[in-house]
Amino acid sequence: MQVRYKIWLEEGEHIFGEGLFSLLREIDRRGSINQAAQEMHMSYRQAWGRIKKAEERLGFRLLTTRIGGEAGGGAELTREGRRLVENFHRFREEVDRAIREAFARNFG
Amino acid sequence: MQVRYKIWLEEGEHIFGEGLFSLLREIDRRGSINQAAQEMHMSYRQAWGRIKKAEERLGFRLLTTRIGGEAGGGAELTREGRRLVENFHRFREEVDRAIREAFARNFG
Repeated sequence: MQVRYKIWLEEGEHIFGEGLFSLLREIDRRGSINQAAQEMHMSYRQAWGRIKKAEERLGFRLLTTRIGGEAGGGAELTREGRRLVENFHRFREEVDRAIREAFARNFG
Repeated sequence: MQVRYKIWLEEGEHIFGEGLFSLLREIDRRGSINQAAQEMHMSYRQAWGRIKKAEERLGFRLLTTRIGGEAGGGAELTREGRRLVENFHRFREEVDRAIREAFARNFG
């Protein structure tokens, strides 16, 4: 038997979770929304839509896009975007460790 | 912004989570599958089906039912059922506390 979980941030509505975290991390690695979307088995349009929606809900920009257009150019995380990704990464690791420990204590 | 999560136990397939936990706790309180199902806005049949499926997957009985038939008589947790509910309860509380603390550290 093993434990599974899903964790996300919301404020009335869903703001940030595993999907967006992975997408932003891929964009950070690849410098391209297009390549990151492919990696995540999404269309460019889907990826862009999710980012725009999250930016609206968060009230800050997650990405800056460089010349060549959103698809052709490049994209990188803003300072706030990077901080959110880093905080979520650390949060996730802390939660993951705590859940494994609690599982071992109660079901191990 | 607040954190939300879902947590469950599985072994290849879903075994035990929030829904079954609440249902069994209601049965324990009320001594009746029927009343517990009503409280959970489920039909008796749904409640019974979920319990049977979980029992199959867990490999032990969760409930004993008393004379009068499954609906008319009464139901109570088996020793193993009670232990599972108690362990899940404690597990959930530990996880909940850890998630709140990790959230405060990283997003507070």
